[in-house]
Amino acid sequence: MKARGPIVTLLTDFGLEDYYVGVMKGVIWGLNPQVLLVDLCHRVPAQDLKAAAFLLEASWSYFPAGTIHVAVVDPGVGTARRLLAARLAGHYFLAPDNGLLSWIFAVQAPEQVVSLENAAYWRPQPAATFHGRDILAPVAGHLSLGVPLRNFGPPLQEWGRLSRPQPQWGEDAALGEIIYIDHFGNLVTNIKGAALESWRRGRPVQLTLGQRLINRFGYTYEEAGPGELLALVGSHGYLEVAANRGSAAELLDLSIGSPVRIQVLKS
Amino acid sequence: MKARGPIVTLLTDFGLEDYYVGVMKGVIWGLNPQVLLVDLCHRVPAQDLKAAAFLLEASWSYFPAGTIHVAVVDPGVGTARRLLAARLAGHYFLAPDNGLLSWIFAVQAPEQVVSLENAAYWRPQPAATFHGRDILAPVAGHLSLGVPLRNFGPPLQEWGRLSRPQPQWGEDAALGEIIYIDHFGNLVTNIKGAALESWRRGRPVQLTLGQRLINRFGYTYEEAGPGELLALVGSHGYLEVAANRGSAAELLDLSIGSPVRIQVLKS
Amino acid sequence: MKARGPIVTLLTDFGLEDYYVGVMKGVIWGLNPQVLLVDLCHRVPAQDLKAAAFLLEASWSYFPAGTIHVAVVDPGVGTARRLLAARLAGHYFLAPDNGLLSWIFAVQAPEQVVSLENAAYWRPQPAATFHGRDILAPVAGHLSLGVPLRNFGPPLQEWGRLSRPQPQWGEDAALGEIIYIDHFGNLVTNIKGAALESWRRGRPVQLTLGQRLINRFGYTYEEAGPGELLALVGSHGYLEVAANRGSAAELLDLSIGSPVRIQVLKS
Repeated sequence: MKARGPIVTLLTDFGLEDYYVGVMKGVIWGLNPQVLLVDLCHRVPAQDLKAAAFLLEASWSYFPAGTIHVAVVDPGVGTARRLLAARLAGHYFLAPDNGLLSWIFAVQAPEQVVSLENAAYWRPQPAATFHGRDILAPVAGHLSLGVPLRNFGPPLQEWGRLSRPQPQWGEDAALGEIIYIDHFGNLVTNIKGAALESWRRGRPVQLTLGQRLINRFGYTYEEAGPGELLALVGSHGYLEVAANRGSAAELLDLSIGSPVRIQVLKS
Repeated sequence: MKARGPIVTLLTDFGLEDYYVGVMKGVIWGLNPQVLLVDLCHRVPAQDLKAAAFLLEASWSYFPAGTIHVAVVDPGVGTARRLLAARLAGHYFLAPDNGLLSWIFAVQAPEQVVSLENAAYWRPQPAATFHGRDILAPVAGHLSLGVPLRNFGPPLQEWGRLSRPQPQWGEDAALGEIIYIDHFGNLVTNIKGAALESWRRGRPVQLTLGQRLINRFGYTYEEAGPGELLALVGSHGYLEVAANRGSAAELLDLSIGSPVRIQVLKS
Repeated sequence: MKARGPIVTLLTDFGLEDYYVGVMKGVIWGLNPQVLLVDLCHRVPAQDLKAAAFLLEASWSYFPAGTIHVAVVDPGVGTARRLLAARLAGHYFLAPDNGLLSWIFAVQAPEQVVSLENAAYWRPQPAATFHGRDILAPVAGHLSLGVPLRNFGPPLQEWGRLSRPQPQWGEDAALGEIIYIDHFGNLVTNIKGAALESWRRGRPVQLTLGQRLINRFGYTYEEAGPGELLALVGSHGYLEVAANRGSAAELLDLSIGSPVRIQVLKS
């Protein structure tokens, strides 16, 4: 008996109003009904590669080895841009070569990357506007059945990279920015909690965001009063600013790219 | 061969914009790929325990015995509030001890309740802000594999309760309120259809909601003209006010907590 | 061992805020845990039969033979309107007899259609307002287990039809209209790409939509500059007007039913 699996995760900007996600599932399960399908997120803002890159980076390692992650945020669909399949730490990744995977690859080099060029694994006559359905979904189906990565196309050594804002670490001050705002209105920064800890070396700090000074650092949202702001390291490992039982994004009216300053306090 | 199942339902206020639901599925399927995952609802308004309690109460019994219901609306995540696992009528329930399960327990006493304290069934080093991923999801996975409830922690005899508006039954008038508004704009009251029937004893009644008098009681939406209001007992068993092919919530501009008065008509 | 499957797709206007979709899955999996469930779309605008008919027409053939498509957009729920089960090209379709399936049946005649009347396959005492849960879901479950279509009720030769705007083909001009607007703001017309090709016979054309003249016809969105409009045949096979990296619906402020004119250019 064939065991159930592997998991195939789907991350797209297709929204939930149309049939786009559904037909990808039809194509995948038409090839391999043992696959376990997970909707990672389909409400990535249209064509927002950075949001997609963040969501995939924050998620992939919570799935078991063997999982195939299919990410389709693809403003260049149908053009000469390549489609990639990669293997990294026992996981597989399928996505357009537009930098969507580059934040993950920057942390850990992929073991193998190929360019999807072997049309034998595609649906016949792929639509120029829907490679998710006609190329990525059938490749995911065949990959889940054990077809080796090299069969899908020639190896690649280079791929597109997506720029990423990096925090700047001074002696007594560090500068970062908001890179993601979640459904609860939590403002996620580009500052890793672990990096912050090793930089501050136990020194007391405060945080400035927009016009607001935040000097409450906590572990749980409830450490602030209702509607009050605090900074904490979120479940994704990044420093975030949240409002207990409220939306920090609404309170502060900030958007992605807004600067965050961390200042060591004189003792 | 291990049969497929059981079902694990997920009810959260995580929304569909982020990766939060997806990683919970990764954790559960990483432990037990035989599980059947159902998204009960992820668009519970943020931190709205009463909406979550209503949705779970209206749903759980439509699943087969053995189903594990995981509910994560958890404003106190990471604080000293406990997490519960309970068995009731052959179903399992996992949720924070914040009253979310108390409406179900008020109708039928749970057979067994434990406090989740045995970290051997958790992900290592749970994030203080995401017990759904790091405690509830792995416990659901282990529970689905047959681990007995008592293994997860010590038994409990008491748990948090969520207040619930109760209808008041007079001789010739009853008073209730709106407890839920659904996607169609149907206004669901706290008056059970069966309780209304036994109280009115066949007497004709009319209903007042806000400034509006409603004297059409029906069985189907189409019994009212297009855009007209009627009262009926919805599929959840509660009296609701609906507009045929329209939204009663928009027409009446009412919100949760608005009073509903039922008056027996003099014959 | 029973193989996994078949697929059951769900298409509804239930939204994602309530428990309605979840309990249908509970009923189906309670009968047959081998079923593979696909959410085709639950955000059909409330009671919008034409949107549902378009989405189902655009999707069903991407699923493997044996798939059961359950469509519940049902303003007449609980009234005398029938519920249908049909077989067509090895697929099964369950829906109210309100025309939802008629666009598919107009292209290819169904091989067998029955009226769901045998209550032995329903949940006991179906709620008048939720036939999706109490009739269609259990029928889908039994159908997936191999119960023959004729068991569910008597055969039908006629069914409800939903009107559909047809393009008008003149000698040098054709007239169509917008029939669907997707999540990206792409404006989908009722003009099939193949029909357009055979009508224009290679003649150059331009397109007028609202006050706008569009003379860029392409294959991929990137053939227009950022924010610029172009016409192309979408992945559904219909001519659509799109804005590269933008929303044509927002740019043009058009709605469903807006006319589209195609004019042959004098050479």
